[in-house]
Amino acid sequence: MENERYFEDYEPGAMRKTLGRTITETDFVVHAGHTGDFFPHHMDAEFCAKSDFGQRIAHGTMTFAIGVGLTATEINPRAFTYGYERLRFPKPVHIGDTIHTTVTIGEKTPDPKRKGFGKVVEITETRKQDGSTVLYCEHILLVEMREPAK
Amino acid sequence: MENERYFEDYEPGAMRKTLGRTITETDFVVHAGHTGDFFPHHMDAEFCAKSDFGQRIAHGTMTFAIGVGLTATEINPRAFTYGYERLRFPKPVHIGDTIHTTVTIGEKTPDPKRKGFGKVVEITETRKQDGSTVLYCEHILLVEMREPAK
Amino acid sequence: MENERYFEDYEPGAMRKTLGRTITETDFVVHAGHTGDFFPHHMDAEFCAKSDFGQRIAHGTMTFAIGVGLTATEINPRAFTYGYERLRFPKPVHIGDTIHTTVTIGEKTPDPKRKGFGKVVEITETRKQDGSTVLYCEHILLVEMREPAK
Amino acid sequence: MENERYFEDYEPGAMRKTLGRTITETDFVVHAGHTGDFFPHHMDAEFCAKSDFGQRIAHGTMTFAIGVGLTATEINPRAFTYGYERLRFPKPVHIGDTIHTTVTIGEKTPDPKRKGFGKVVEITETRKQDGSTVLYCEHILLVEMREPAK
Amino acid sequence: MENERYFEDYEPGAMRKTLGRTITETDFVVHAGHTGDFFPHHMDAEFCAKSDFGQRIAHGTMTFAIGVGLTATEINPRAFTYGYERLRFPKPVHIGDTIHTTVTIGEKTPDPKRKGFGKVVEITETRKQDGSTVLYCEHILLVEMREPAK
Amino acid sequence: MENERYFEDYEPGAMRKTLGRTITETDFVVHAGHTGDFFPHHMDAEFCAKSDFGQRIAHGTMTFAIGVGLTATEINPRAFTYGYERLRFPKPVHIGDTIHTTVTIGEKTPDPKRKGFGKVVEITETRKQDGSTVLYCEHILLVEMREPAK
Repeated sequence: MENERYFEDYEPGAMRKTLGRTITETDFVVHAGHTGDFFPHHMDAEFCAKSDFGQRIAHGTMTFAIGVGLTATEINPRAFTYGYERLRFPKPVHIGDTIHTTVTIGEKTPDPKRKGFGKVVEITETRKQDGSTVLYCEHILLVEMREPAK
Repeated sequence: MENERYFEDYEPGAMRKTLGRTITETDFVVHAGHTGDFFPHHMDAEFCAKSDFGQRIAHGTMTFAIGVGLTATEINPRAFTYGYERLRFPKPVHIGDTIHTTVTIGEKTPDPKRKGFGKVVEITETRKQDGSTVLYCEHILLVEMREPAK
Repeated sequence: MENERYFEDYEPGAMRKTLGRTITETDFVVHAGHTGDFFPHHMDAEFCAKSDFGQRIAHGTMTFAIGVGLTATEINPRAFTYGYERLRFPKPVHIGDTIHTTVTIGEKTPDPKRKGFGKVVEITETRKQDGSTVLYCEHILLVEMREPAK
Repeated sequence: MENERYFEDYEPGAMRKTLGRTITETDFVVHAGHTGDFFPHHMDAEFCAKSDFGQRIAHGTMTFAIGVGLTATEINPRAFTYGYERLRFPKPVHIGDTIHTTVTIGEKTPDPKRKGFGKVVEITETRKQDGSTVLYCEHILLVEMREPAK
Repeated sequence: MENERYFEDYEPGAMRKTLGRTITETDFVVHAGHTGDFFPHHMDAEFCAKSDFGQRIAHGTMTFAIGVGLTATEINPRAFTYGYERLRFPKPVHIGDTIHTTVTIGEKTPDPKRKGFGKVVEITETRKQDGSTVLYCEHILLVEMREPAK
Repeated sequence: MENERYFEDYEPGAMRKTLGRTITETDFVVHAGHTGDFFPHHMDAEFCAKSDFGQRIAHGTMTFAIGVGLTATEINPRAFTYGYERLRFPKPVHIGDTIHTTVTIGEKTPDPKRKGFGKVVEITETRKQDGSTVLYCEHILLVEMREPAK
């Protein structure tokens, strides 16, 4: 729900953890159909049986979309997305893996180009049931300052 | 389809352009249901009518997933995704916008940590019908070298 | 298909039984995405493994929507839904359960407020393959009378 | 997210209001496909143009599933659904309507059959943009008592 | 529902007509995602605006799948599909068209290769609101004979 | 992508083979919901366990739609679909089967009714992992001639 916070309110190091969600074969099929990416790495179990992983692997775009989607429980009307940096997929997501995401407030810097706004980094990490990381990225927010820097 | 290319085969500056696709209200609803992100910016037309954009805006994760998905027409068995850098969403995607993506080969650098592999940047830009950019990102590929650097 | 019946034509005790349908993991994922309810009881297999049921349980709203949906094979142009009473979910539906619904005509009463109409109760019960009941509800129909009560 | 509350913690009259959501043609089509109910009242625009409403009307099961789904933002590990009473659909939902739900705590009563539990009624009302009510129902919760009645 | 009929029971010339269904943009998007066919004729409104039809046209495979799907209201346990002949799409289906299907019993012939079975042709025609035909095909059934030919 | 070919360019006997795709339970559920065909042969695992196949079988319309959909990787702006002949489903598709399609150019004939066009038959065969054929059909294309027959 709504949780209004200004630039000044973000505390580096603060962390929140989302609910978990099991990634199903359905998610693989829905994502292929949603994006048009039917590459055999995601969709052809016979092909994958002969690959290094031995089974289908999730689309990186799905791991990102669902990993980030899990965090969509708090709306801050003073913030919006500037972009994402350093997207990485250290371990693959397979059908049946259960993931959750942690968001940790990282660096905060006033934005020299946008008076009255600052950038806040949300370090976004998605892990699966064995503790390994399947998504790392840095979500850059532009957040309104309560008291604009002079 | 399959198009085998080694690190040496990527030519900086080479460009390819995908087919176009109209982003529909259905895509908005499917993406919300796929990711669990039902924020009113994407799903509540009344809320959006009073916002700056005046209408619903696409999830950034959808613009990314479909923008990148449009490029999934060529499989290179010698390459895999290392990550993405500098994801930006300069303009919003609205219901009814038609997008396509261009991929331009950028910088190529041998990978100091992985002997026999190099990094290739694919500059990925998604534009809509009015020519404005709705997604910019740098897709980093790890590509096998034909002749490993000594 | 169409099956026209007036209030007078409903016979208390008459019963019909629908086809069966296996509830799949896909249905769970589709329902979560359709309603926005991603509670871990339905979506997180790890969480559920530690719960009393030991596995994911269907959303009550899904058991109701599909249980009632199974009955949608006969349109009576003389009847429409007034409401539902006493919705209960005596046993949970798990992934892989096969359900069917029986509809039994219950009490019939003229509607004092709507001259020319009566209320007909359709006792709606959905059972799974082991015979246990997963949904009970009373569907109240408003049905036109052939010969309005004087 | 999790919000633990015992029977004693529910305050009759307390109210919460959900986010809004626009019901789209996509939702109509998804619900038909999910439930198997393809009745022309929901799916045939030509048929509906000649009906009293002049346009397609939402499945009651969808208004219920999404209306209740909107409330799924707080998990109380001390409560679970006992059932629903008095489901009514006073006004129809059409394509393009934007709905939100209010939940008001109603009557609280110790459960004579389940020692240590009480029943709490959540009066659930879904309204659309013009303020009219499209769903009314009473959600009956079974809630653990902090201090079981003697 | 079930409607048991033997080869002898099919009467050439007998006709049944299905309910109608409006084909929506959602159906276009779902079909593309289901089949992987994202050709611009179906998915790119800008491309189609410059084409002869001036708008998106339905996949032939969708017109067939939904046109035939509309007829799936009667199960005959004595019949199964042998194949389809002469599939044609005389007019295109556009977003918003409302279609229904008529099935007319055509030619009946004993099957020389399968003793005790005969072939029954179901002439399947799907029309839209202006009366024009969008699908024609001949559904060939293999039907058990009540009294096998000697 | 686009691959322009005139009638003269099609070489009988030329063959292409698509990527593979595993048909999932999700595809079964999506197809039922897309077409409205919820027959127990496709949707009721209990019913199917007692049938000859012992398990659910794919809708013929799905095998056709996905089998043909797999071939949608090359757009020829000089060709369009005239129809399909001899659709057959020699073996059933079950959940978990992996299919691919081969397209072989068959007979070519000038079209006596459409000056400047000819008909090209694409023999379309979909096979599963054990090599058996699950779909056979003849896709009839109308293709523009480079030099119209005099």
